[in-house]
Amino acid sequence: MFTKEDASWMARALELARRGHFTTSPNPAVGCVLVRQNEVVGEGYHQKAGEPHAEVFALRQAGLRARGATAYVTLEPCSHHGRTPPCAQGLIDGGVARVVAAMVDPNPRVAGRGLAMLQEAGIQAEAGLMNEAAEAVNVGFLHRMRTGRPFVTVKLAASLDGRTALANGESKWITGPEARQDVQRQRALSCALLSGSDTVLADDATLNVRWPELPASVREHYPEAALRQPLRIVVDTRNRLHPGLRLFSVPGPVLLLRGQMTGGFGPWVEECVLPRAGNGKLDLPLLLDELGRRQLNRLWVEAGARLSGALLGQGLVDELVLYQAPRLMGNIARGLFELPELTAMTQVPILEWRDCRRVGADIKLVVKVKD
Amino acid sequence: MFTKEDASWMARALELARRGHFTTSPNPAVGCVLVRQNEVVGEGYHQKAGEPHAEVFALRQAGLRARGATAYVTLEPCSHHGRTPPCAQGLIDGGVARVVAAMVDPNPRVAGRGLAMLQEAGIQAEAGLMNEAAEAVNVGFLHRMRTGRPFVTVKLAASLDGRTALANGESKWITGPEARQDVQRQRALSCALLSGSDTVLADDATLNVRWPELPASVREHYPEAALRQPLRIVVDTRNRLHPGLRLFSVPGPVLLLRGQMTGGFGPWVEECVLPRAGNGKLDLPLLLDELGRRQLNRLWVEAGARLSGALLGQGLVDELVLYQAPRLMGNIARGLFELPELTAMTQVPILEWRDCRRVGADIKLVVKVKD
Repeated sequence: MFTKEDASWMARALELARRGHFTTSPNPAVGCVLVRQNEVVGEGYHQKAGEPHAEVFALRQAGLRARGATAYVTLEPCSHHGRTPPCAQGLIDGGVARVVAAMVDPNPRVAGRGLAMLQEAGIQAEAGLMNEAAEAVNVGFLHRMRTGRPFVTVKLAASLDGRTALANGESKWITGPEARQDVQRQRALSCALLSGSDTVLADDATLNVRWPELPASVREHYPEAALRQPLRIVVDTRNRLHPGLRLFSVPGPVLLLRGQMTGGFGPWVEECVLPRAGNGKLDLPLLLDELGRRQLNRLWVEAGARLSGALLGQGLVDELVLYQAPRLMGNIARGLFELPELTAMTQVPILEWRDCRRVGADIKLVVKVKD
Repeated sequence: MFTKEDASWMARALELARRGHFTTSPNPAVGCVLVRQNEVVGEGYHQKAGEPHAEVFALRQAGLRARGATAYVTLEPCSHHGRTPPCAQGLIDGGVARVVAAMVDPNPRVAGRGLAMLQEAGIQAEAGLMNEAAEAVNVGFLHRMRTGRPFVTVKLAASLDGRTALANGESKWITGPEARQDVQRQRALSCALLSGSDTVLADDATLNVRWPELPASVREHYPEAALRQPLRIVVDTRNRLHPGLRLFSVPGPVLLLRGQMTGGFGPWVEECVLPRAGNGKLDLPLLLDELGRRQLNRLWVEAGARLSGALLGQGLVDELVLYQAPRLMGNIARGLFELPELTAMTQVPILEWRDCRRVGADIKLVVKVKD
């Protein structure tokens, strides 16, 4: 059983974990707090893959004061030699008396072995304190560990009547600056961004993270020098993109999925012939499998009604984020999703709201699409 | 200047006023609290047109203890002889020392005269405490006093992607039971409901308030015996409605606006030839003027994309209430508003959010359309 004090130390560990949000992928964000006699003797969080894990920072800080302490960690300590030695061993060597993990690590290389290693060394080790909050910290990593694919979030911006652009295609801007800042934050949280050639061509979009446009609260903990660009993946079935686009002039890797390869896009750009499904269209499940293999935890989709609709129709979307502006554009304007026709309301699945809040002049709605 | 104590007594008076919400129209809902030496000596609220005003109930309860008291009223006391004698005179006769009104009554028969009457009698009388909350209590009445027309709210129920029905017209039910309960509450708050023959025919809709379907919190203060049905106004340009519909079999008045009169609808039903504008379509401004003349404070519109779009396009909508279900129906499904085509985002006005909250499994969004 966990006490109120346990929960408050774990809350601190979760707060530390979140500081790694923008930089730890493909690793999970993890925080650790070492407490002895109701006093913090060490704390830390994982900052970047290849660098020490949260437990190491906390143990270093605590030194000999780790002896007899309780370690609060937001994810089960690892039991395997990766790029760093196993943290469970570190905690044993440090002499901690008790380990509380928010959750078991579903990574098949850990999956309970970290806790078992601690218990075998006579340490009281248990998991499950603030499990839900810990899941939320690593939505993408945990999803990839469980399914082999990235967590897919489809982003949409629409008017109150569900329109993404005028009939003539104009859409700049439906939502306000705060919503666009939030999109920048979401891009920064993502390992990859998926879009289509229509979207790129419509606005000559760069699809990158622009540090000065991140919310101040993010910039504070995420210096410009540490900025990571998500992999920009663009579907260009009809080979309409050309090297002169702004997409290719800003730094950061691009993966181009094209009808055929032409070359000439420069060193940042990986050009591939897109994998086709039986119907001749892009094989989306295969694409997601490949992105999983590339250790991409979160995929952020900013695409038109066709690509978004295809992902949704094939059950590949985990979450929708809809920024809704207090405007009305009318039925002639463009809609959100191209989906097959349904003929009975019972065929229309009921999704689950995750969030509903004001973002500047707009509203942000988050919907969970599948478990 | 007003004190904290003043504000807390006014909050009580506003709470009392709201109890009349469902029954006072065409009159405003008003609450009154009489306080002497920091103690309530009388309180009351207006319940029904033709019956005593809030001040009368409070004065009756207070009796001689009204002498020297402060009266907190949510709307300026009336100065004219209507169906009841002027309340300002009642407060003078009761011997109150001070009157605090939340706001001046914009009713041209009052408009400051109530406060003036009190001041002339040597009573300290002022207005403006919790003005905004008092405005919210009588949105419809105040709007009618200021414009001569009812306050128009367009109700919509749609999926997350702004679709009101499948391509084949099926829409039962997009939203969940809590949202439908909230619609019942809104109907009960309205003096009239506007719909079209399509909507009536699609579901053989009764468009009435069904007491058992009101939220429990409303039923508690609003007994079934006191239930008032809003006037149901149906636009039937092509004379498609017939007396066999359920609309005509449930109690409550109906106003039918038809291409031509046929008769045969029974005593509850007022059949009119609809007033046409220059373009041959229903003259909506004229209709609203007429509803204002009939002292209807709030008009609740539950109509299809055409009628809702026409009202909106002509700038006749004050507020939109959108119940949004966590579902996706796709671009083939039916949209919310038929509006003229726009060609630049700058032509799309930005409205103002009033509210955004969960209602059961759905979200309720309220948007202010015009001032």
